[in-house]
Parts: sequence; C-alpha cells; structure tokens
Amino acid sequence: MTDALLDRRQRLLGPNVPTFYRAPVHIVAGQGVWLTAADGRRYLDAYNNVPHVGHAHPRVTEAVARQAATLDTHSRYLHDGILDYAERLVSRFAPPMAQVLFTCTGSEAMDVALRMAVSVTGRTGLIATDNTYHGNTTAVSQLSTRRPPVGGYPPNIRLVPPPGAESPAGGACGAPLEAFAAHVAEAVADLEAAGHGVAALVLCPVFANEGLPGVQPGWLEGAAAAVRATGGLVIADEVQPGLGRLGSDMWGHGFLGLAPDICVLGKSLGNGYPLAALVTSRAHMAAFRARFGYFNTFAATPVAAAAGNAVLDVMEAERLQQNAMEVGAALLTELQNLDHSALVRVTGHGLMAAVEMRDGDDAPATALAEEVVEQMKDAGVLIGRIGRQMHILKIRPPLPFGRAHVMRTVETLDRALRRAQTVAG
Amino acid sequence: MTDALLDRRQRLLGPNVPTFYRAPVHIVAGQGVWLTAADGRRYLDAYNNVPHVGHAHPRVTEAVARQAATLDTHSRYLHDGILDYAERLVSRFAPPMAQVLFTCTGSEAMDVALRMAVSVTGRTGLIATDNTYHGNTTAVSQLSTRRPPVGGYPPNIRLVPPPGAESPAGGACGAPLEAFAAHVAEAVADLEAAGHGVAALVLCPVFANEGLPGVQPGWLEGAAAAVRATGGLVIADEVQPGLGRLGSDMWGHGFLGLAPDICVLGKSLGNGYPLAALVTSRAHMAAFRARFGYFNTFAATPVAAAAGNAVLDVMEAERLQQNAMEVGAALLTELQNLDHSALVRVTGHGLMAAVEMRDGDDAPATALAEEVVEQMKDAGVLIGRIGRQMHILKIRPPLPFGRAHVMRTVETLDRALRRAQTVAG
Repeated sequence: MTDALLDRRQRLLGPNVPTFYRAPVHIVAGQGVWLTAADGRRYLDAYNNVPHVGHAHPRVTEAVARQAATLDTHSRYLHDGILDYAERLVSRFAPPMAQVLFTCTGSEAMDVALRMAVSVTGRTGLIATDNTYHGNTTAVSQLSTRRPPVGGYPPNIRLVPPPGAESPAGGACGAPLEAFAAHVAEAVADLEAAGHGVAALVLCPVFANEGLPGVQPGWLEGAAAAVRATGGLVIADEVQPGLGRLGSDMWGHGFLGLAPDICVLGKSLGNGYPLAALVTSRAHMAAFRARFGYFNTFAATPVAAAAGNAVLDVMEAERLQQNAMEVGAALLTELQNLDHSALVRVTGHGLMAAVEMRDGDDAPATALAEEVVEQMKDAGVLIGRIGRQMHILKIRPPLPFGRAHVMRTVETLDRALRRAQTVAG
Repeated sequence: MTDALLDRRQRLLGPNVPTFYRAPVHIVAGQGVWLTAADGRRYLDAYNNVPHVGHAHPRVTEAVARQAATLDTHSRYLHDGILDYAERLVSRFAPPMAQVLFTCTGSEAMDVALRMAVSVTGRTGLIATDNTYHGNTTAVSQLSTRRPPVGGYPPNIRLVPPPGAESPAGGACGAPLEAFAAHVAEAVADLEAAGHGVAALVLCPVFANEGLPGVQPGWLEGAAAAVRATGGLVIADEVQPGLGRLGSDMWGHGFLGLAPDICVLGKSLGNGYPLAALVTSRAHMAAFRARFGYFNTFAATPVAAAAGNAVLDVMEAERLQQNAMEVGAALLTELQNLDHSALVRVTGHGLMAAVEMRDGDDAPATALAEEVVEQMKDAGVLIGRIGRQMHILKIRPPLPFGRAHVMRTVETLDRALRRAQTVAG
C-alpha cells in the first residue's frame, strides 16, 4: 500500500516531494499526542509542532467548524473575530510590539518581514545563519542553504555560522557565542562596505534548525548590538520556539531577553489551520503599510481568527505553557541521564530538545542518527533530525505531552540507540 | 459600531489596511449568495469569488470539520486525500498538464511558478501587463503596478499594456489585441538584448484585473508565439477565471484555446479554506523539483484536500459550471440592455462581467463608478471596481447565483446609475 501511494505521489506530485523516513508512514488519524496509521499501528508523536495543543483538539476543530458554517470572508469587510485575536496576541508581547499583520503561512509572514525591514531602514542587506530555513518564498528561500537559489545568492545576503557551529563536541557554547557576534559584526561591515547597508538580522532565537545549541539569556546581545549600531533591525523567527513551547517564556526572544523589531509567528498558531502572523511596533508597521498595499485574501478571516482564538483558549484552559516547562524539564533530565558513547550533547528549552551524536572519531554520526530515528519509528515513536550533518536528534512534541510520554520516548530512544549502534557499528 | 471597529483595526492592524466601501460593511453571517450584516441588513453578494460554491456551503464546511476532527497533518506523511484531489484536479486539464504542487495561497503558487519558469528556461526575464495583480510575495508583487517595489522594478521585468488598453470607448478589441502581441514581442526582444532572456509571460487569460477587455478564442496566440519563439513559458493565472466560472470552459486558457506551460489556481479552490495550486507538465515540475526542495507545511494536508474535494463534489452535484454559463449569459444580456449615457462597454465571460463607464468627454468616469458601487451597496447589492482608473464596474458572484439574483443586481444597478448620475453630475 505504501509503495502504491508513493507511486501515486510521484505520478501526481512529481519527483523530490519530501517525506519523512525511509519507508514513510501512512497516517489516517490523530488525537492528542497520538497518530494512527492505516495498518492500525499507533505512533507517539514526539515531533510535530503544528498540532500545538494536540492533534484534532475538539475545542479548536469545533470552533473552526462553527465559524466556517457561519461566515468565512476576507478582511476587506469588518469583523470582530480577527481583532479579538489580534488583541489577545499582542497582549502576549512587551511594548513597543503592538500591531499584527496576518498571513496564511510563516513563509508569507517572513516574506513581509524582509520587506518591512527594507521599508524601515531604506537598506537592503540581510544577515542570517548559514544553516537555516525561514520559509519557502523566492525572497525568503534566499536565506536558506540547503539548495542555493538559481543564479546564486543575491549580493545583499550574508550568511554566518550559527552559535555553536565551531564548538567541540559536547563543549560549552560561551566562546562560540562570542564568535557569532564577531561573525555578525563582520557581515555588517561587509554589507556597509558593499553599499547595501543592513536591513535586518534574521534568526530563530533558539536556532532550532541549526541544532539547538543551547543559547542562554543575554547570549545574542553582541550580535543584536552589531546590527543595531548601523540602524538594522532584528527579526525573530518565532515559528518554532513561540507560543509557549519553551515553557519558561511565551516567546524565544523573551527567554533570551532580546527585544526584536519584528516577530514572525507560524505553524503553532492555528493548530493546523493555515494561520501565521507578523507582530511589530506601530512605527515599523506604518513604514511597511506606507510602501506596500498588502492584502492577503485567506488571512485575517473570521475562520482563521476562530482557530487562533481557540488555540489560545486551550493553552489557557489546559495550562500548556506550564506543562511545557514541567514536562520539558523532565524530558531534558531523562535525556541527560542516557548513557551512550555516541551521545555527546543534550540541549533543550521546554518541549524542544536536541541530542547530538558523534562517532568514535568525534565526527558527526549522521548514519547512526538516521538509524536511530528509523528504529524509533519502528518502535512507535516519531522524532526527527537536524544539524548541518543531520546528526542531531530533534524532539519537539505537541504541548499536551505528559511525563509518561517522556518516559516512553526516552526508553524507546535508549533501546533504539543500542540497536542502532549494533546495526551502524 | 463601524467607527469603533475601524478604530480598533487601526490600533491593532495599523494604517492602510484595505477595506471595501467608504463606510465598510460589518458582515457577521453568510449563506449561499447572501451576506448578513451586524445590523441585520442582508446583502446580495455579486462580487466574491472565494465562496465559489456559495458562502458556508454545508457540504464543504462539514467535509472540512469531519477531516479536521480526524487528522490534519502535513505531506511528509502519506495520505490518500490529497492524491485523490490532485487526480481529480489534473483530470480537468488537457495533456501535457499532469502534476500539481499545492500551496496555501495563489500568491505562493505564483511565487513558485516564477521560479519554475526560471528553472525550466535558465533565464530570468518576466513579462506581465502594466495594470495587473498576481499576488503579494516580494517576487510576485514586482509584477504589480499599484505601488512600485522599494528600490524600483528589477531589471528583468517588462510590463506591457494589456489588450484593450488603447481601445476607444466601446470600440472593438481586435486591433488592440494585435497591439498586445506587438508589445509582448518588443518586451521579448528587449529582455533578450539585455541578456536576461525570457523566462515567462504571466497573464490572466481574461485580464480580470485589467478591465475584462472581452478577449476571444485565439486572441493571445500572437503574444504566446512571441514568447515561445525564444523558449519562454506562458503562465496562466487562473485564480479568477478558473474552476468553471466562465461557464463555457473549466479554465480561462481553455476558452482562449491557449495551452499554457504553468497554471496558477487559488481563491475558489477551497471555498474559503486556504488552498491554492500550481498545475504543470511532468517536465516542468521535475525541473523545479530538481532545483528547489519545496515543502509547504499547511498545504497538501488532509483538510485542504477535504475542502478541495468537497468543492468539486458540489460543482458536480449542483452543475455550477453549467449554471455559470446559463446565468452568466443572462447577466450579460441584461447588462447590455441597460441604457445609460455613461455606460460605454459591457463585457463578460460566464459569471464575471465588467461595465465600463465614461463621462461626456469620453474620459474614465472614476467618480461616477465609485458612486454607483456605493449606491448599490446602500441598496443591498455588493459589487466592485477595476481598471487603470477604477472606472469599470466588476460583477463576479459566487457560482450559485441565479436568474432572480441577476435581475435584482441589474435593476439595482439601473437605479444606482440614475441616482449616481444625479449625485456625480
């Protein structure tokens, strides 16, 4: 059946449409932190962040269904729903963050963020890390490194190594953090010298795609200062850390003590409904709105608002940020207690953790990490991989993840590591 | 209440967030072709194309609700729904169109289409009309003319006058069509000489934003030939004409007898659920997929597929393409029977019609057109405006529009024209 589906995908969607796992799973149902496959197999979801408050949460699906059956138009007519949601969303930010621009996807929100930075600064230079992903539009994908843009990178982009890139296996991140600030300062000087100037530094506050290097409060001050010295903005990509996943804080930048100029939110906001947003100050929003007549048909609709409001309702009712903090701490402890020679570093912030794997020669253990992810899937627990060499395990479950789920995940990981080391070794 | 909502929008969303009408409507419910305002007032919707099969169609909202309560994950896992939908969608195209790439918005699909054209041709030049809109991403908005991009237009873009741009009021479109082919040929030569070459000509087959000039089968052959002579592609923006609105044909390019290389679909596909798509040949899809590792989290999901499939179900069950043909013909006839000095040209294709208005000196009657739209709103019928001088009335209702709705719309327009001429004159 899987082969038939893969053939059909190839025929209808074309080649290179990405899937997870050597033999992709065929999922037919989801509830809370559990997914059910077509063969009846159940998987513990320790990876997906879109179902932020749990797969198919009835409060969200019912709110969406109710609103869709009532009205679903665009924001050229007036409606309370999206304003109620905007109000609740900005109330979760510190001033001067005060206004929202809604989109359908994080990619669209980041695409606007880049134009906003250009509008505010009058300059075009962009700095990001050299192992990142911030979205899939033409403009945003120029920041990505997996596949260089057709015709090469535009002259106004500088990509710098992320914090921790030079760290020895298991080493501390302090020194690399200083290195990061130095890299950013160098990129700033280079963009200035080239005449582009600096529009913005774009980063995920916890560097979730780069490998979750374990940043701590204050660690990005040097990089931010280098950008701001020339009038550039800081854009925080909160798609992964945002909306309470870190437990200790609602947003990644809050955890760092960093005050970004623009925040980009996505994935988690609508629990699957295509809803994303950009949050910024009045001044920056006005600068963008003066330059672009931006309208997004499917965004800022009554149904998108219903999804967003319901997610916030569930977050509050089920105390999911608190849960992320408590269960995330347990996850980190249990992971740190694992004892395997290949397991060289465990980092985590709330319900997002990374497990770096290296082989006997201290080289990234890419094949072993892949084998572990496959073994865990076969044992009924879904996780993923990140890092430049894809040698870092990534655990990032829906927020209703409980302690029993942590134990199951870590025990399964323990067994998978033993088996995988046998297979790969 | 409207003022309070507008103040709240300004505070939370910022300035210049577009609305319709001098005093925007505050809509709280929709059903079929009717919208209900907060004050209980009912409006006949003769404008919105997103609710393609009617506002809050129960078959669509129930399909979305059912699937959302079951499973809503991404396309990195396997699922039948999106493949069933892809199969049904491509079956509505002629070969070699055979594969689909799903996105959330038409903007995202067009953004991919531009990169696909560059991937296929190895060239970067783009040609569009000089009074168009194809989407809101950084790359796609460079084709728009309402507000020039920050820093000016990129050197690889050529914008040409649309067909009918030079036509005398009420004149035939034949000669201007030849002019369009000549403009495109000139842009092709210019892009070749500048070293960009031609990646694609991007157009809406019926030029819905430009003013619906009344194109007829075969009329774009010259323009397409000029582009293809140098290996360039033709991208058809089917967001407005597509999915049966034209009545006679499922797609605008089908009506024209034009065989585009890439089709971009949006708005109507999900009846409000954020669902858009790009349809192309195997060869073009492979060229793109070889260059870009494209993945869109919220697209190609089981819920997006449920929405798309339900819309096709309703189209078939309620014979809505047939309805668009029959009721659209009645709409065109009734509009052509109107007798007002300012009404100089009526064009239409299925359930999309345009009414061009000019004053006594044959100048575009922008103020009069605005007044008519406002008068109609006050009389309970929602329509819009297009054209370079916004002097063309646009009627583009949901497809379940009936003959009684046509009569009400045209009678209301007749009265509004009389009143507006008194006010504006």
